Amino acid sequence: MSLTVVGSIAFDAIRTPFGERERALGGSATHFSLAASYFTEVRPVGPVGDDFGDAEYDVLRRHGVITDDIEHVGGGKTFFWAGEYEWDMGTAQTLDTQLNVFGDFAPKLSERARDCDLLFLANIQPDLQRDVREQCGNVQAAALDSMNFWIEKTRDSLVKTIGVVDMVLMNDAELRMLTEEPNLVQAAAAVRAMGPRVVIAKQGEYGAALFTEDGFFALPAYPLETVRDPTGAGDSFAGGLMGYLDSQGGATDDATLRRAMTYGSTLASFWVEEFGCERAERLTREEIDDRYEQFKRITAIESVPAT
Amino acid sequence: MSLTVVGSIAFDAIRTPFGERERALGGSATHFSLAASYFTEVRPVGPVGDDFGDAEYDVLRRHGVITDDIEHVGGGKTFFWAGEYEWDMGTAQTLDTQLNVFGDFAPKLSERARDCDLLFLANIQPDLQRDVREQCGNVQAAALDSMNFWIEKTRDSLVKTIGVVDMVLMNDAELRMLTEEPNLVQAAAAVRAMGPRVVIAKQGEYGAALFTEDGFFALPAYPLETVRDPTGAGDSFAGGLMGYLDSQGGATDDATLRRAMTYGSTLASFWVEEFGCERAERLTREEIDDRYEQFKRITAIESVPAT
Repeated sequence: MSLTVVGSIAFDAIRTPFGERERALGGSATHFSLAASYFTEVRPVGPVGDDFGDAEYDVLRRHGVITDDIEHVGGGKTFFWAGEYEWDMGTAQTLDTQLNVFGDFAPKLSERARDCDLLFLANIQPDLQRDVREQCGNVQAAALDSMNFWIEKTRDSLVKTIGVVDMVLMNDAELRMLTEEPNLVQAAAAVRAMGPRVVIAKQGEYGAALFTEDGFFALPAYPLETVRDPTGAGDSFAGGLMGYLDSQGGATDDATLRRAMTYGSTLASFWVEEFGCERAERLTREEIDDRYEQFKRITAIESVPAT
Repeated sequence: MSLTVVGSIAFDAIRTPFGERERALGGSATHFSLAASYFTEVRPVGPVGDDFGDAEYDVLRRHGVITDDIEHVGGGKTFFWAGEYEWDMGTAQTLDTQLNVFGDFAPKLSERARDCDLLFLANIQPDLQRDVREQCGNVQAAALDSMNFWIEKTRDSLVKTIGVVDMVLMNDAELRMLTEEPNLVQAAAAVRAMGPRVVIAKQGEYGAALFTEDGFFALPAYPLETVRDPTGAGDSFAGGLMGYLDSQGGATDDATLRRAMTYGSTLASFWVEEFGCERAERLTREEIDDRYEQFKRITAIESVPAT
């Protein structure tokens, strides 16, 4: 099995109440790939500039990420984002965005990348997402993420793209915004009516919820005493989730999706404990499986006694 | 076993995108008592005026609620609140508050009311809560709710009162506000350091979380396609929770608390399906137990296959 992700590869300048980084390895495809690497072979597709060197490739390669489809644009600079989180660690305030080589990104996937079993279209322009989806004709399942910016600017294209994927992973606020439905159950139903069989609402510190034809599932976030940097939480969630699904032969039945969401939430919980993707440097599969078991314990409701 | 609740009894004027009511039976002690009545004998303590008549008493009595400790203040009017919810059904906009007889409320509990096994101090002035706690010397466990108003106006008194109860049930935003800790795990720990053994964070549409010495538990809210009126959600949650605990001999171990929270969330989910406490008019224990079982299904994570 193999998994392809198309998205950004970036350097991030991040400031939070717990510290700052001037040039952390980031981008949706990076966070996704590192998280997915604990479960399967993952192939990120995205552009980088001359400033992206061996040190960055090595982070990915040490995790077994296949870097052949990272496109080096000679003379260019890598996508750069600067943001800041306030004391409540809610949403980031963007201080600077320099698209650089990402501004002209027109993904042309190699045969190996197109030939994946699962495809994740990270949060990029919906026309590009749809183009990539068409290049990968034989995938078992394709999933996408998106955001308020594309809902505002390119809603029609986003709806078309949602129509050609199997799974949508978006923040709950953005599902509401997209569908103009304040009720999340109705918002998810409206997105499923656009085509996808599966809708997963990311709810930040409150966890995530799953909506399919067969039912509903909700998972809290893992309780953390310290969240140092929320950057990459959503992408590591998606990476853990899609990586696990790929490791299970691409199954997307409800039971497998529940386990996949739990792995996704586990990865995201580790991710936010440190800046950028730094936690991945020393994260082990054993730690992941331990925390997965914790998730089972912290969500278990016992049966009512017969009394 | 028996359960006493001290709080408001009110008439509410409510407007939501789904309709309006000019004079709905409301108040924290009312919602709490009706929800708790499915599990145990409950005794609300609170004042009413001349406008509170047989029709209102009958709603309570049909549920087996003991109304002996409802204090009729001759010549007075019952507490009145008017509020409106916008399209997202988040927080209520208060349009009018008339304290009326509630403004001079100085709870003097009857012997029967003081002699309860469990005590719930609904959201009233913290000095009054502490006074009631002192009147009930022999309770197995006392719990309180509070709100931003008391945190702002009477923080020191609230902290003293928290010091003499066993359980705190508050909104997560208010736990953060009270402790000035943006991280909920740390906020709950800070409240536990004030005295209570148990902290339960109410999280609205995201459910609720439990913090004790023994660990953490989180429960999503029941997925509802239609929320018609959130009024009373928190009080019916508390009523279901405390009522179930009382029915279990007042046990407050983690396993019983998890079941109690699930019953509380079940009651709250029914409550918001209709205006005020109207859903209680035709709610059965069988429906409650069915939805409790649904909660188990929508939160279950299956074990990872050995592969």
